[in-house]
Amino acid sequence: MIQPSAKSDLATAQDRIAAAFDVSLLREAGHRLADALGSHMASVQAGEPAVLNWREPQANIDLAKKQLAATENDFEASELLERFSQLVDTMLSRGQNLHHPRYVGHQVPASVPIAGLFDAVGAVTNQVMAVYEMGPWATAVEQAMIEELGAAIGWPEGEFAGLVTHGGSLANLTGLLTARNVVLGDVWERGLADGRDAPVIVAHTEAHYSVARAVGILGIGTQQVIKAPVDGLRRIDPNQLNEILAKLRKQNRPIIAVSACACATPIGAFDPLVEIAEVCRRHDVWLHVDAAHGGSAVLSDRYRHLVAGLELADSVVWDAHKMLFVPALCAFVFYRDREHRFEAFRQDAPYLFDPSAPGLAEYDSGLKTIECTKRSAVFGLWGLWSMFGRQLFADMVDTTFDLGRVFYEKLSAADDFEPMHDPQCNIVAFRHLPVEMKDVPLEELGEFQLELRRRVIQSGEFYLVPTKKDGIGGLRIVIINPLTKPAHLDQLLDTLRETGRQMLRES
Amino acid sequence: MIQPSAKSDLATAQDRIAAAFDVSLLREAGHRLADALGSHMASVQAGEPAVLNWREPQANIDLAKKQLAATENDFEASELLERFSQLVDTMLSRGQNLHHPRYVGHQVPASVPIAGLFDAVGAVTNQVMAVYEMGPWATAVEQAMIEELGAAIGWPEGEFAGLVTHGGSLANLTGLLTARNVVLGDVWERGLADGRDAPVIVAHTEAHYSVARAVGILGIGTQQVIKAPVDGLRRIDPNQLNEILAKLRKQNRPIIAVSACACATPIGAFDPLVEIAEVCRRHDVWLHVDAAHGGSAVLSDRYRHLVAGLELADSVVWDAHKMLFVPALCAFVFYRDREHRFEAFRQDAPYLFDPSAPGLAEYDSGLKTIECTKRSAVFGLWGLWSMFGRQLFADMVDTTFDLGRVFYEKLSAADDFEPMHDPQCNIVAFRHLPVEMKDVPLEELGEFQLELRRRVIQSGEFYLVPTKKDGIGGLRIVIINPLTKPAHLDQLLDTLRETGRQMLRES
Repeated sequence: MIQPSAKSDLATAQDRIAAAFDVSLLREAGHRLADALGSHMASVQAGEPAVLNWREPQANIDLAKKQLAATENDFEASELLERFSQLVDTMLSRGQNLHHPRYVGHQVPASVPIAGLFDAVGAVTNQVMAVYEMGPWATAVEQAMIEELGAAIGWPEGEFAGLVTHGGSLANLTGLLTARNVVLGDVWERGLADGRDAPVIVAHTEAHYSVARAVGILGIGTQQVIKAPVDGLRRIDPNQLNEILAKLRKQNRPIIAVSACACATPIGAFDPLVEIAEVCRRHDVWLHVDAAHGGSAVLSDRYRHLVAGLELADSVVWDAHKMLFVPALCAFVFYRDREHRFEAFRQDAPYLFDPSAPGLAEYDSGLKTIECTKRSAVFGLWGLWSMFGRQLFADMVDTTFDLGRVFYEKLSAADDFEPMHDPQCNIVAFRHLPVEMKDVPLEELGEFQLELRRRVIQSGEFYLVPTKKDGIGGLRIVIINPLTKPAHLDQLLDTLRETGRQMLRES
Repeated sequence: MIQPSAKSDLATAQDRIAAAFDVSLLREAGHRLADALGSHMASVQAGEPAVLNWREPQANIDLAKKQLAATENDFEASELLERFSQLVDTMLSRGQNLHHPRYVGHQVPASVPIAGLFDAVGAVTNQVMAVYEMGPWATAVEQAMIEELGAAIGWPEGEFAGLVTHGGSLANLTGLLTARNVVLGDVWERGLADGRDAPVIVAHTEAHYSVARAVGILGIGTQQVIKAPVDGLRRIDPNQLNEILAKLRKQNRPIIAVSACACATPIGAFDPLVEIAEVCRRHDVWLHVDAAHGGSAVLSDRYRHLVAGLELADSVVWDAHKMLFVPALCAFVFYRDREHRFEAFRQDAPYLFDPSAPGLAEYDSGLKTIECTKRSAVFGLWGLWSMFGRQLFADMVDTTFDLGRVFYEKLSAADDFEPMHDPQCNIVAFRHLPVEMKDVPLEELGEFQLELRRRVIQSGEFYLVPTKKDGIGGLRIVIINPLTKPAHLDQLLDTLRETGRQMLRES
């Protein structure tokens, strides 16, 4: 155990605790942080630094470990503020710059920066939930946003319910867990290994991997996922879905749910929810819609049509940390029927849920979410909405979705690029086809895309992501920074061309 | 859709987006936040405001909704900063004040305030993980802390593995999911409903409710939890555990795991891990230890003995957002054997995990955690450790654990209080026994405790929690604010006495 020596002014446990909880340190560090974040954000938004600060993992880990070990030596309380600044500088210089206009990467946004300050209020004061008492304001804010977003989906007040959890994967798990418990009755208590027939889930062929994962976690087995065939636009085909469900019903196989996408991640394809909901209704099957990315389209007059029928789903996942542009993680799960809100987890914890005020259990988030203690994840969204109103969110959806179309037109106009689909939103998959690569085997063309991407991202010029179609590699961008402009997309094509030429020269 | 009218300077989508991403707004708001947090924290640490700002839930929800609707009217960019300050003031005035020295509530700490500022760096810049590329520094910091804490448990470098997830419930789920998949072989793919025998989990009688929940989620069924009997100190009895496992092995029942506690939440009882591990080894059973609360004792020379044998577990849960005093949520899961790190989730997502750099998958957190996109949850812990060193954490464990004993002695010395156990740490359950209640039925005495607590917490004087033993209510405190002093505990007894007298006068 390391003990600061006697010459430090932090010689006793009480000294060290007092220094750590010192309010003037907090205040001064807060001011330094405001300046550091301001300077950093200005530089990043101006496109000055690299997008991704690429280093080999072990080099970063070694530095992080070195800093952990730095305080093995003596130190004085007066050094703490400077130490704080140095650590913040390291953090800001080694990360991924999502606010860079040339960040066109995963479905993680350039979040509205000030939203992070609302989250900071929660982090510094450690506001949590599980029981209402522990987070009265956090609970209220969460409930207010559930009501606001559920109404935006189109449900009547008081008829639906919702919850917030840490990410889309947990949201899909929670929605499908509720479906499992509702459909199979006593499975929560008895388990699946009681001689019952193996139940199935019917999911979009390109559903996010968290859907198959949920099936694995829930004990259903990933082999019990039946893939719903898609049409030429890679959307679930309602007629084929109808045939699958009819056949399963004939076989008496228990069907947990149909899991549809709004949109599927690879190319941003939105399933035809009205038709799918009708098919599910006909066969009395739970409809789960993963609208993690596309749910926000309900706020846009121009793009709302993409999610028509979302209100017909039994459960809906909607990530605020995607197209509502708040920091991760803040994922909503909605149930169309309020009666399902306690179905996912059927137990109680007597020391949490207090018989002296039983009415409060309605407001105890821990009965509805997989988290027991849960950080207040909605402060950023609530703060932004309260400052700027609903229109800002519609603006950000419109601006980034529009730009998907702009990029598609640029790709179509270029001889040496090929869009892999006609985009419905801000997700666009494509390939670079330099003239030298026109006649190479497809596998080689695919490998070229992946290697091209790796060089570009490690250079720090742009950040984009890989994709595959029928096993062949491609490039994929998500325009999820409202500060990205058409000119940046021209630059992207140029950077890919130039890097491609360099690769071809080398080979 | 609400549109700001033409007289606003935020008339277009581009205006509104520019205002939201404005760097000077971020900077100025950051400075205001530093002052607001500083003033708030000073007042709370001095014990000035109420501990819990009690209001009926609907009153808070109504206010939160009112603020969401406030921007339906016109507003100018110049008003935004003031709006931010007002919203922060509301947040600070309506929450639970964990940093109040009279907060002795749930196992959620008065976190070291400055840790929240490190988390704020992540929130404002939206640093996430899943793949290394997206969060190179977040990944490095997490890996550095995994190595540091795993070494503190006592494992040799390179032999163990770990991950970070959003809370103890998910940590228990992940550990038990890994055990399920390892023990049952192909259950991930085939599911449990394939005619196999129903597997069981043997858990501490007072295991946290998330253990039974995990069993329900995983499809094993909560009826398949076999309760391991406890001794007079409410710790698993290794001899009885041995008999249970021997019987199950004789019956050929698949055993997923033994789930032990370090410590169990009701009274903070630490299981005898060395003996339990020996029993598990004898029967070749996976040992999972929920050390969410007590894991931090490994850092204390004086309390490390409570978790002797922790290094013998196959999986360990340790919440940094409990006794490492960082903001929620930051929960670690460790596997003694590094080979188990990819067993929980057995799939890949081709667009995430890139064949152009396969070695990087080792650093892609999404392969190991239930979250896909995961917020960087370790910045606060890494920042604190780098600023103050390991000794601070030992100090906070020692100080709060010591105070549990101090409180026990006060209870024992008082005629009108009764400790419900001899505490091993900072969790103490007890009852108030005013002379008028000495001869009432036990049920009535229990109801008195719960009603007494409700009055006290709603008054804002103290925050403490309820408990039950054999169905009879009691009071419970967790001393989890290092600024709580013995004098506050004297005040607690006085407040309970006074409120109790008031109740008795009324009845």
